[in-house]
Amino acid sequence: MRFENISLNNKKEVVLSAYLLDNSAEFNNVNARPAVLVFPGGGYYSTSDREAEPVAMAYLAEGFNAFVLRYSTGEGSEFKAALKDAEEAIALIREKAELWGTDANKIAVVGFSAGGHLAAALGTMGGTKPNALVLGYPCILDSINLAFPIPSLDRKVDSSTPPTFLFSTFEDGVVPVEHTLRFMQALNEQNIAFESHIFQKGVHGLSVAKPLSSSGVKSFVDKDFAQWFGLSVSWLHKVLGDFQADKESLIPDAEEVKEYSSEVMLGALLDYPACRNLLVEYIPAFADKELVKGVRPYSLSLINRHLPNPLSKESLLELDKRLKAIPYIK
Amino acid sequence: MRFENISLNNKKEVVLSAYLLDNSAEFNNVNARPAVLVFPGGGYYSTSDREAEPVAMAYLAEGFNAFVLRYSTGEGSEFKAALKDAEEAIALIREKAELWGTDANKIAVVGFSAGGHLAAALGTMGGTKPNALVLGYPCILDSINLAFPIPSLDRKVDSSTPPTFLFSTFEDGVVPVEHTLRFMQALNEQNIAFESHIFQKGVHGLSVAKPLSSSGVKSFVDKDFAQWFGLSVSWLHKVLGDFQADKESLIPDAEEVKEYSSEVMLGALLDYPACRNLLVEYIPAFADKELVKGVRPYSLSLINRHLPNPLSKESLLELDKRLKAIPYIK
Amino acid sequence: MRFENISLNNKKEVVLSAYLLDNSAEFNNVNARPAVLVFPGGGYYSTSDREAEPVAMAYLAEGFNAFVLRYSTGEGSEFKAALKDAEEAIALIREKAELWGTDANKIAVVGFSAGGHLAAALGTMGGTKPNALVLGYPCILDSINLAFPIPSLDRKVDSSTPPTFLFSTFEDGVVPVEHTLRFMQALNEQNIAFESHIFQKGVHGLSVAKPLSSSGVKSFVDKDFAQWFGLSVSWLHKVLGDFQADKESLIPDAEEVKEYSSEVMLGALLDYPACRNLLVEYIPAFADKELVKGVRPYSLSLINRHLPNPLSKESLLELDKRLKAIPYIK
Amino acid sequence: MRFENISLNNKKEVVLSAYLLDNSAEFNNVNARPAVLVFPGGGYYSTSDREAEPVAMAYLAEGFNAFVLRYSTGEGSEFKAALKDAEEAIALIREKAELWGTDANKIAVVGFSAGGHLAAALGTMGGTKPNALVLGYPCILDSINLAFPIPSLDRKVDSSTPPTFLFSTFEDGVVPVEHTLRFMQALNEQNIAFESHIFQKGVHGLSVAKPLSSSGVKSFVDKDFAQWFGLSVSWLHKVLGDFQADKESLIPDAEEVKEYSSEVMLGALLDYPACRNLLVEYIPAFADKELVKGVRPYSLSLINRHLPNPLSKESLLELDKRLKAIPYIK
Repeated sequence: MRFENISLNNKKEVVLSAYLLDNSAEFNNVNARPAVLVFPGGGYYSTSDREAEPVAMAYLAEGFNAFVLRYSTGEGSEFKAALKDAEEAIALIREKAELWGTDANKIAVVGFSAGGHLAAALGTMGGTKPNALVLGYPCILDSINLAFPIPSLDRKVDSSTPPTFLFSTFEDGVVPVEHTLRFMQALNEQNIAFESHIFQKGVHGLSVAKPLSSSGVKSFVDKDFAQWFGLSVSWLHKVLGDFQADKESLIPDAEEVKEYSSEVMLGALLDYPACRNLLVEYIPAFADKELVKGVRPYSLSLINRHLPNPLSKESLLELDKRLKAIPYIK
Repeated sequence: MRFENISLNNKKEVVLSAYLLDNSAEFNNVNARPAVLVFPGGGYYSTSDREAEPVAMAYLAEGFNAFVLRYSTGEGSEFKAALKDAEEAIALIREKAELWGTDANKIAVVGFSAGGHLAAALGTMGGTKPNALVLGYPCILDSINLAFPIPSLDRKVDSSTPPTFLFSTFEDGVVPVEHTLRFMQALNEQNIAFESHIFQKGVHGLSVAKPLSSSGVKSFVDKDFAQWFGLSVSWLHKVLGDFQADKESLIPDAEEVKEYSSEVMLGALLDYPACRNLLVEYIPAFADKELVKGVRPYSLSLINRHLPNPLSKESLLELDKRLKAIPYIK
Repeated sequence: MRFENISLNNKKEVVLSAYLLDNSAEFNNVNARPAVLVFPGGGYYSTSDREAEPVAMAYLAEGFNAFVLRYSTGEGSEFKAALKDAEEAIALIREKAELWGTDANKIAVVGFSAGGHLAAALGTMGGTKPNALVLGYPCILDSINLAFPIPSLDRKVDSSTPPTFLFSTFEDGVVPVEHTLRFMQALNEQNIAFESHIFQKGVHGLSVAKPLSSSGVKSFVDKDFAQWFGLSVSWLHKVLGDFQADKESLIPDAEEVKEYSSEVMLGALLDYPACRNLLVEYIPAFADKELVKGVRPYSLSLINRHLPNPLSKESLLELDKRLKAIPYIK
Repeated sequence: MRFENISLNNKKEVVLSAYLLDNSAEFNNVNARPAVLVFPGGGYYSTSDREAEPVAMAYLAEGFNAFVLRYSTGEGSEFKAALKDAEEAIALIREKAELWGTDANKIAVVGFSAGGHLAAALGTMGGTKPNALVLGYPCILDSINLAFPIPSLDRKVDSSTPPTFLFSTFEDGVVPVEHTLRFMQALNEQNIAFESHIFQKGVHGLSVAKPLSSSGVKSFVDKDFAQWFGLSVSWLHKVLGDFQADKESLIPDAEEVKEYSSEVMLGALLDYPACRNLLVEYIPAFADKELVKGVRPYSLSLINRHLPNPLSKESLLELDKRLKAIPYIK
């Protein structure tokens, strides 16, 4: 993987951390990965570590590239500055998309609490919008006291707001569930697709709700609430598309290359009597239908070394030639 | 996080990749993390990317530090060299444990196929042994043809072999399930604790069995087989211990500091009438028992800014003084 | 189990089906079970089989007793009649609670679509109210055209409405998600505890969303939506309480009976040297601490027959006497 | 559902309990259900309630019919009698298969501990064999002391033994895991397909490992071990086949009946301009492509009553006639 910390807007403390998964020939179905851009919470006073790297890691494990933004915070700052940081971050990710193996049109912003406010602000008021929003126990209404005044966002929802995934708890004693309800209502009125999971139990600030993100505190662990993460991944796959996995094998099918050989999948060879007889001539064990089931997605050259009596290099070459001599038939 | 590539044994191609999660005051319960050291498979011919970073990521998301070893492979190499690489890798992790925020006594080696052979070899023949083994569809017996001859490992199991988690499939057409069975039998004979999940269906080389690790191939995705990962995490927590999460709050309890104040958890204050009456005097809303439930794990100074009518700095200081004046009673 | 069909309100077609789990000495922790009363949907035209027995079965498997009500439906009927049926059903379950092994104060009503309307009506307008509501893609507003006119229920929510679990889909083309949102908003305004899961995808009428409830139709199967069921069980345990499971063993602890003997749990005996030495005298294998770990929750008389060399009846009696002679010490 | 208790072999105490799910037009894809026949454990001294109805319920909730056999037990009995009961039970289920809505070729026997011995005996020595075996912490070897002598079953495995699912724990202090290992080894030698889950932790007799089956005892609850159940259902679907769910709708497709009308799925009508224009003429809202997405799997006659301004009966009939007049085109 590659890991980078990048300062934005010429501010040392505004840092975008980029976690970029390796690509390789073996990951040919995930060359342009979807990405999440995480905005941790902290009442706009600070950005919580508990809602930063652990969240990035969870999405990385699902094959997303991940970014964490430490945006402008503190009583000396203001909402406009934070929004500008958010806009700059998503613009940079889109600009570097190819270099970073990321799909510029599959960027979800994931925000928690005040970071959820910033995410929702980017999705409603932002000059450049993400492709999906994931909002965890977000602040939405200006009635809440944070480090500086914030705009209410429910009335900013319009037809350009991206599809949104919301999660929070009824018992949240810090940001009332009313914030979530009002944003959901607004999305529905604008016919913006959404998914929403409001758990009854659970304190504010649960993050991924596992011991690893708990700071050792019992009430920050919650197996039920922790399900928001898997639900969000399913939802993101529906909204942004899933990784393709529809090929029969790593190895080319005879059909693709219009040829039989020791380099194509054994399946087609075993199904075509002319090839099958030739295989059995060299490797009698291939006569046993049960035995060969498991080798169908592999090539002969790959499987040969696993045979109890592998063919010699010469025999393998000879067999390859004879297979190639059989005209390909669809 | 920190990410490093380190060459071992003076060989350019033998590389240990270290993925080290950040620690911070908010992760005070995970300062010395457990770690996994991953040995990808590839018949000792090569090491598969599909069984490298995606596996590391899955364990990182569970709070483990992760290491991937690209050990010596190829027909020109030999088993001894690979084993030496493995020994060197685990020795280095133990040596740098403190620097890397890792618990030197909580290192599990996770190996797949030929990498499973190397992991089991380290756990039986190794000069330095891991604390747990996770073996995915491992090669165990010398009857299999790989890049070079390998020793059978079932007879090497003794009382110093670490507890082991095994997973594989009955239908594996490349490494017969017999390999898994023989190692399990040997563990049981030596009374080494183990867990084992043999799925009926599934081809060889499934890795984490998700689209992201599939190279786009259908048969490399399997929702049932994919459960090995969660089961392995549960098992590792049992064998190596889980992250602590038994504190009531981030904020000190009055009991810890033997004092009431605006900096300790509100819970104890609300339970003690003298404190409670004082709180209600300043913040009448605190009289409502339902309302205050959610604030019990927070301190007054933290919660104050979220109140509809927060106390002024002066009032807060005054209240803090009056609380401190109340003698602490257990 | 016992299964009964009971006609209500002297109407042949209004039938309450009772599925009552067996109790036994082995189920001493579930003598008074929680129960679900299921109202299938069908637009008040009929009651769907797909939302009847499969739902009852799912809750039975979780240890609840289950009831399904076929309430008054059809264009010739009216809402009042259906509500009367619902009231009669819950009253009957409470009346027969003891006979039926049910806890009269742990009755959740689970309704789907029009059945969700009836459930919500019972929870708001009903003369006798359930202890919890589970509403699946419910009709709430009078704007919808069903077999007969229905009252809007959002404005009927008051402080006596039970805690409520809601689930539905944003894409529901039959009952708009607005119905769910309005009821949720009303619950929140009245500070009634709720949990709510709105999935983006999914057609109307998904029931438990498995092949078994699908009538063979693809769009009636949905692995994500199917999670509502497990979430509802977790929630019901939180609201109604879970089955107790805090005893150390089936077998009395020495502490309970204030005596050592062959009939109490071996744990306490093994922990007390006087008893332990005596045990080892008769059964030398008990000296091995690892070996005996697994037998701690069993009694000696129970474990004896599983020993390689079991004690004779005479020896067992003798040992029992000698154990009883050791004065009990806490 | 139907519930019956049937005495077998003219013995009052040998009882087969039959739990038969209802079929209906709405369950047309599950007319001939798979079934489980449960043999509870108890050392052949008795049959445990904990491994009886709770297990039956779990499979019923998955759409299986379920049977529980209380077979011959006690020191006065013998193994032959128990085996005869088992043979009689499966023969009766096969005989009554049609009457009981069961597929005679999809019967799995599920046995626990001594009941696992009986299940494995039926699958190896039985005159009539089940279609699959599910063995929970089974007794397999004659070295164990039960109510009467039992034969070892590992050597009885041959090519007629059905595919088998095994689960147990390494720490089982009553029936050593060796029993499971030996049966697995025998299956593998005979190339009988199997799946096996051996958990490290867990006492003997866990059943479904939930509070509801725990008799209130802590060590009888285990979230990890409880996963055997879901794994067994996935496996049974693979071995016996799953419920079909491949139809597009409950409502006939125009293609099936070769006709357009108000009774066929709206999907095909909306895709064919001639029909679509007609629909929009009567119901202008149908011009909105987004709006009508959700109604595609329903018929017009069904959806009409949910419209804000439903068509009158007369208009609906007229529209139906005009639709039927449009020649059907594939």
